[in-house]
Amino acid sequence: MSIRIVQSKQNARLKELRRALASPGRSEDGLAGVEGQNLIAEALHARLRIRCVFVAQGSERLLDALDLPADVEVLAMPRELLDSALATETPQPVAALVETPDWTWAHVFGDDPSSAALVVVLAELQDPGNLGTIVRSAEAFGADGVVCLPGTVNPWNPKAVRASAGSVFRLPVLSVGEEEMLEQLRCAGVRVLATTAQGAQAAEQADLSGAVALVIGNEGNGVPADLAAMANGAITIPCPGPVESLNAAVAASVLLYEAARQRAAKNSAGPRGRHGGTQ
Amino acid sequence: MSIRIVQSKQNARLKELRRALASPGRSEDGLAGVEGQNLIAEALHARLRIRCVFVAQGSERLLDALDLPADVEVLAMPRELLDSALATETPQPVAALVETPDWTWAHVFGDDPSSAALVVVLAELQDPGNLGTIVRSAEAFGADGVVCLPGTVNPWNPKAVRASAGSVFRLPVLSVGEEEMLEQLRCAGVRVLATTAQGAQAAEQADLSGAVALVIGNEGNGVPADLAAMANGAITIPCPGPVESLNAAVAASVLLYEAARQRAAKNSAGPRGRHGGTQ
Repeated sequence: MSIRIVQSKQNARLKELRRALASPGRSEDGLAGVEGQNLIAEALHARLRIRCVFVAQGSERLLDALDLPADVEVLAMPRELLDSALATETPQPVAALVETPDWTWAHVFGDDPSSAALVVVLAELQDPGNLGTIVRSAEAFGADGVVCLPGTVNPWNPKAVRASAGSVFRLPVLSVGEEEMLEQLRCAGVRVLATTAQGAQAAEQADLSGAVALVIGNEGNGVPADLAAMANGAITIPCPGPVESLNAAVAASVLLYEAARQRAAKNSAGPRGRHGGTQ
Repeated sequence: MSIRIVQSKQNARLKELRRALASPGRSEDGLAGVEGQNLIAEALHARLRIRCVFVAQGSERLLDALDLPADVEVLAMPRELLDSALATETPQPVAALVETPDWTWAHVFGDDPSSAALVVVLAELQDPGNLGTIVRSAEAFGADGVVCLPGTVNPWNPKAVRASAGSVFRLPVLSVGEEEMLEQLRCAGVRVLATTAQGAQAAEQADLSGAVALVIGNEGNGVPADLAAMANGAITIPCPGPVESLNAAVAASVLLYEAARQRAAKNSAGPRGRHGGTQ
């Protein structure tokens, strides 16, 4: 591995990194900035292509643990120069520019027609930490993908990538319009359920073991009314406490847990159970 | 309401606010800083005593909606002066110093012996956003209180207060040592369950409808081994996906949901059901 020394803020790669972190996923070639040794390792494990690695001078040993491809471009620079490009408050001395995967609906639906799809749809979710946490929970609970509607924070936002703990490198995350989402899910036989803070069917009473998409809305305003009206139904998480308000990432994760719980119960019930819903 | 104008960074109240935000809960008189109109309104609704309100000159109208006690001290100052005292990146033009409640075990256990206690214990949880989110979920799912062990982030950290959406003003949150926690819960007949990422009994198989305390550990390292060894058991959240790792606030919230679900099922099963566990 050869390391090139960079001294100028005007270095083209450094500018690309700065731009990718500030406007994630917006560049023509779909580059994202990834900060820190652990996340870069996760990106490599997920077989994402690394365009360039940036390391602070004196921290080159961090690269040894990374198992970088032999031909990857590595730039070393003064710590202050690297810090100035990074988005975190307490930046780590290593970062990378990675090529974001080109996910399609085929990746979401997969090629096993017997497995019931489990999809999360995000409608105007604002907080990158919430988005990353939802992608992490979606992967953990066996969801097939996450769909980001317009007005939702970019999944390659550095805070989202960090909160996802690397799940955003592995789980299909699509950014599409509302019409395309509804059309694709309808054609695939996936029921679209809007989540609401109260008044709808309790999650446990709803059948989440069939093919479903769970729509999570904005932190303050929930699922937009026009979208909720086009959904196949609505569900709510019963909250016995004095407040019926959950963090958006918590709501999504609880519903994903409930779906995984119902699916495990159905599978353990054997072939007969597989055809009976819980509704 | 009379408003006093402040021009100096050295103003005693402003110094108190700065200190309360930087070292929450550490002051002798247990003051906490609360930022923004919504959170101040929540603190008032929860009947916390407001020591002093700080408002940027030109934003005094924000006070009208707050229904402040007539005798509360109100200080107005240039926006930059107020901003310099606040902890948030994009500070709001109003803040308050509030007296934190003096919670005791009696508040946690309450005076209804027929209701099975549900407690969350935090062991070395580091992230204030996670702590606030857990307190919010705990209140929503009907928990009786949250116990913070040494090494856990302070519940009055401004980011924790914000993430709690005001739940930290209402739900009993105690900061005690490990021995006191174990002793008090044992005496009250509360089973202590350590949560672990894998290998323990599945949450759904465990009886969470009786009196239980759920121990949530550090974001990176989980529940400390010595504490886990002293617990009455361990539970895990089954994750069918390729990664078995959840965000700490998500794990706590999913377990609280599962406990609330089991309790609702028990209650709806009538008097006979009340005596049968799910285990």
